[in-house]
Amino acid sequence: MKLIIANKTHSSWSLRPWLVLKQFGIPFEEVLIPFGPTMDDPGWKRAVADYTPARKVPSLVDGAIAVWDSLAIIEYIAETHPELPIWPRDKTARALARSISAEMHSGFTALRGACPMNLAWVHPARDRGEAVAADIARITEIWRDARQRFGAGGDFLFGEFSAADAIFAPVATRFTTYSIALDPVSAAYVEAVQGTAGFQAWREAALAEPWVVAVDELDEPVLTDFRPNLSRSRAQT
Amino acid sequence: MKLIIANKTHSSWSLRPWLVLKQFGIPFEEVLIPFGPTMDDPGWKRAVADYTPARKVPSLVDGAIAVWDSLAIIEYIAETHPELPIWPRDKTARALARSISAEMHSGFTALRGACPMNLAWVHPARDRGEAVAADIARITEIWRDARQRFGAGGDFLFGEFSAADAIFAPVATRFTTYSIALDPVSAAYVEAVQGTAGFQAWREAALAEPWVVAVDELDEPVLTDFRPNLSRSRAQT
Ligand SMILES: N[C@@H](CCC(=O)N[C@@H](CS)C(=O)NCC(=O)O)C(=O)O
Ligand SMILES: N[C@@H](CCC(=O)N[C@@H](CS)C(=O)NCC(=O)O)C(=O)O
Repeated sequence: MKLIIANKTHSSWSLRPWLVLKQFGIPFEEVLIPFGPTMDDPGWKRAVADYTPARKVPSLVDGAIAVWDSLAIIEYIAETHPELPIWPRDKTARALARSISAEMHSGFTALRGACPMNLAWVHPARDRGEAVAADIARITEIWRDARQRFGAGGDFLFGEFSAADAIFAPVATRFTTYSIALDPVSAAYVEAVQGTAGFQAWREAALAEPWVVAVDELDEPVLTDFRPNLSRSRAQT
Repeated sequence: MKLIIANKTHSSWSLRPWLVLKQFGIPFEEVLIPFGPTMDDPGWKRAVADYTPARKVPSLVDGAIAVWDSLAIIEYIAETHPELPIWPRDKTARALARSISAEMHSGFTALRGACPMNLAWVHPARDRGEAVAADIARITEIWRDARQRFGAGGDFLFGEFSAADAIFAPVATRFTTYSIALDPVSAAYVEAVQGTAGFQAWREAALAEPWVVAVDELDEPVLTDFRPNLSRSRAQT
């Protein structure tokens, strides 16, 4: 089984199924195709097209079966491993987990646009407008609700780590990267997600990456630069 | 079981789970909350919030369980009715069905923005730009590929009607509404989807609706007006 992904520093959709596979101990081969200089770089698209007709990452190739899109990949993994609680076992919890995962999959475009995933830097807090604030309010509402109703058995949305946590993991990193103030429940959750062994391994690999993706770097003050050897000016030439 | 939807003339996301329920003969109660004058009308949001914290439609309420987002609702229905082939039974076909459904769920924003679902009118063909053309090319590629590989047993993407057809149904209507020229396989498929008993019933109810949603009406020539009593000028006052 091969999982095709892009730069760990930036590829938020790639992180999701990767984290599911790692956290549940499912072996797979990783194929990382680094982004080109622009998001629609034809060379990148051609390389990715060998694995998926949608020409995006992530994509999973399991023998003769190709599956693409993070959500479809996660459903495929869950179905292939019924012995693992990839979705919560309780029917009501599972319905909520799938609802909030689909809400994430198709929504929060203001936050996603204004605050691209970027594990290399931390930016100081600043006002990012009403639409971003509304997205943050809804996301943290989702987290508090799940934690309160189903979180008792652990530190994650449904207690133990589940697919829903993998789906929200890139958002957790954005709250850190953009120094977004959070209520205590959400702040603890962001820490729990980023404290998983899977995420730590992803992040370590990200910070060792030699590539820079200018489009995912905001032209804003930087509080911390985790890749000081890759200077910003180099990024933008 | 209650399905909360909005105007049948316009609510593309509502159509998807509704069509799954109808085509598979699953009984449900429909709760239609007509859109307000704008998409973020506070009265509409409040009415919808009784059923879903995401404050969008569709939403499903099954006893004490709330499920929202078209895709999560469809997974919930499929899981609750394992005796029905809501997703294709074949593993490879099912992986493809979920991949293209998730691709639809999160993508094709150019087509969705430029050509809102509107069952009331037919507009003449016109060039809608490169991004829309690219979406159309990819959607029809998806359809031709599924029809060729898995379509032998019927007129739908995977032969018999499945969730994937429900998910693409609103796009099929857009191709009709905006007179978009199609290859023969895609044209036949658009006809098959719109020929289902479920879709016919939806459309009939749509054309009897008394509401007008100006934001989903393009200011363009109209070839056919299926609701001539609701005149356009009335729509825009
Ligand atoms: N809905 C898709 C989104 C995939 C996506 O947009 N991936 C980005 C990388 S994180 C990509 O491939 N971008 C390149 C492009 O859009 O051409 C999913 O959930 O997997
Ligand atoms: N990803 C959601 C999209 C739902 C959605 O955007 N629904 C529209 C109606 S078709 C809506 O509720 N619009 C009102 C709003 O966004 O406030 C789904 O698949 O159900």
